[in-house]
Amino acid sequence: AADGGKITATLFPGDGIGPDIADAVREIFEAAKAPIEWDEQHLGKTVDERTNSFVTRENLDSVLKHGIGLKGPMTTPIGKGFRSLNLTLRKELQLYANVRPCFSLQGYKTRYDNVNLVTIRENTEGEYSGLEHEVVKGVVESLKVITRTASTRVAEFAFKYAEENNRHMVSAIHKANIMKKADGLFIECCRSVADKYPNIKYEEVIVDNACMQLVRDPSRFDVLCMPNLYGDIVSDLCAGLIGGLGLTPSANVGANGLALMEAVHGTAPDIAGKNLANPTALLLSGCMMLRHLGLNSHADQIQNAALAVIAEGTYRTRDLGGTAGTSDFVKAVIGKL
Amino acid sequence: AADGGKITATLFPGDGIGPDIADAVREIFEAAKAPIEWDEQHLGKTVDERTNSFVTRENLDSVLKHGIGLKGPMTTPIGKGFRSLNLTLRKELQLYANVRPCFSLQGYKTRYDNVNLVTIRENTEGEYSGLEHEVVKGVVESLKVITRTASTRVAEFAFKYAEENNRHMVSAIHKANIMKKADGLFIECCRSVADKYPNIKYEEVIVDNACMQLVRDPSRFDVLCMPNLYGDIVSDLCAGLIGGLGLTPSANVGANGLALMEAVHGTAPDIAGKNLANPTALLLSGCMMLRHLGLNSHADQIQNAALAVIAEGTYRTRDLGGTAGTSDFVKAVIGKL
Ligand SMILES: CC(C)[C@H](C(=O)O)[C@@H](O)C(=O)O
Ligand SMILES: CC(C)[C@H](C(=O)O)[C@@H](O)C(=O)O
Repeated sequence: AADGGKITATLFPGDGIGPDIADAVREIFEAAKAPIEWDEQHLGKTVDERTNSFVTRENLDSVLKHGIGLKGPMTTPIGKGFRSLNLTLRKELQLYANVRPCFSLQGYKTRYDNVNLVTIRENTEGEYSGLEHEVVKGVVESLKVITRTASTRVAEFAFKYAEENNRHMVSAIHKANIMKKADGLFIECCRSVADKYPNIKYEEVIVDNACMQLVRDPSRFDVLCMPNLYGDIVSDLCAGLIGGLGLTPSANVGANGLALMEAVHGTAPDIAGKNLANPTALLLSGCMMLRHLGLNSHADQIQNAALAVIAEGTYRTRDLGGTAGTSDFVKAVIGKL
Repeated sequence: AADGGKITATLFPGDGIGPDIADAVREIFEAAKAPIEWDEQHLGKTVDERTNSFVTRENLDSVLKHGIGLKGPMTTPIGKGFRSLNLTLRKELQLYANVRPCFSLQGYKTRYDNVNLVTIRENTEGEYSGLEHEVVKGVVESLKVITRTASTRVAEFAFKYAEENNRHMVSAIHKANIMKKADGLFIECCRSVADKYPNIKYEEVIVDNACMQLVRDPSRFDVLCMPNLYGDIVSDLCAGLIGGLGLTPSANVGANGLALMEAVHGTAPDIAGKNLANPTALLLSGCMMLRHLGLNSHADQIQNAALAVIAEGTYRTRDLGGTAGTSDFVKAVIGKL
């Protein structure tokens, strides 16, 4: 949706520090002259019956209309009978692939200095089916659902991603030695897709072993393709290797290029509105959004500026051990554009 | 079962390097005058119909009779229609708690030097139910089963373990924000047990977040109590922090003190019989066995000798970057007894 040369994107500032970091992203995007117009969306105050969550029909329609969006952190209010907001968005919009590039940041030291991988997570089924019941008192069954359609779709996404981003290997992560049929189907689909990409190496790694190898030598991995729950666990583990969720961007991608990028860290309500939040994860997610729209030079410009500020280490927010405010960081990034 | 002052224990040497490391353990135990008589057991060459696996009824009866055993690595031959050997043992013997102490080894440097935690994994149900079916073509359902009985049992085990081993905190690891009923039941059981142990701190950590924290600061954890699959993943992750499965012991404990200790690394068939295998994991598992039998001074003596050899770094097997043979390591340990 172009508007005076600009592309309109949905923006969910979200809860807690969400508005603080969304403002930061807006400001930096404006300074970088990124041709984006925001359609700001807020969740409903009550459960929308059409979505069975605080996500409203209008929220969904905005993303569907523009085809692209950026989302801050959201907390699902406690209570039964309605779904997680994040999951509602992923499921209702059929954002089937969750993509999280994870790379060591120069200037922000962790125990690992050579991480450069991408986790690609099936985002719509698996252990997240929501199908559970108490069979008899004290016995609960929870259904994991693996389909050929969703597994093939995410495997195709992973290989295409690898090809387009000059990555050389896809590792399918599974537990098919135990879930022989479910995870067996998942890797069967990955294998079939792998056959169509002879130039990309393909391997299968059992999830427990993958986690062990990730903490020993993450540099041996490149693109990891996983069912939902393993993707959830492994992507957080990987974020931990480079410093946490405050630094890692994420994209949820669906059919026809529909995409919603999001910061996956928490809402940190204790520091909300206090000019203390670190906007890095949302900003880098914004860069993924720009790239997805083909605005690569804007994406590079903003990402390089942000990484340069982090590398210098002068304007570091509290979560990274510094004393800079959100606005100091924003100013520093703008200064580097 | 005492025999001339000796206790009889079942020994499954297992496959691949299994016999090499089992011999190493025998030799060191003998030198340390550990009062153990071994009842050596081998798997069947064909599937035993009574167990639907290569584990024979006689194998199971041996462990049931002696109440205690030690097990090397085993590979399940590929094929459908029979169960993993490891799982058969755990399920048939109802070895409901898998215990893996994980601590940084002096002298063997990894990125982490302050790991000292214990993972306690529910070992009989969860995602390991084995219940799966293809509902319609291309759609597989896999059942995760969580029961109040098994969850309470493993939670009680974890708190009792914490109390007896002077550990101060139990973290229940879960994904109850998604599997509200299944994992919800698991943490509900953990909470009820926690109420009975006011001197032990209790917390709940979502599994993805737990993995992120484990790679950032494992020292914040003490005892982790988990459903089967998270336990499988997290225990391997933790082993990775200190150098891998070649160094970490493991115990499977059931009712009335029934216990089968095991090395959880692979069978490494390529180096089998070549005097190259590292017996540390099986040896430390043997020490867990001795402690379980109340033979603490023998356990300490052997464990201290093994840790001293590792700390010196002179007799290091290939997997640890050294050139020592299994027999060199054994001799060195015996020299330190
Ligand atoms: C908040 C939660 C529902 C979510 C998930 O489990 O997918 C989160 O952990 C994530 O990875 O985005
Ligand atoms: C070999 C496999 C069946 C087993 C498991 O998944 O439990 C292993 O990973 C373990 O942790 O002991």
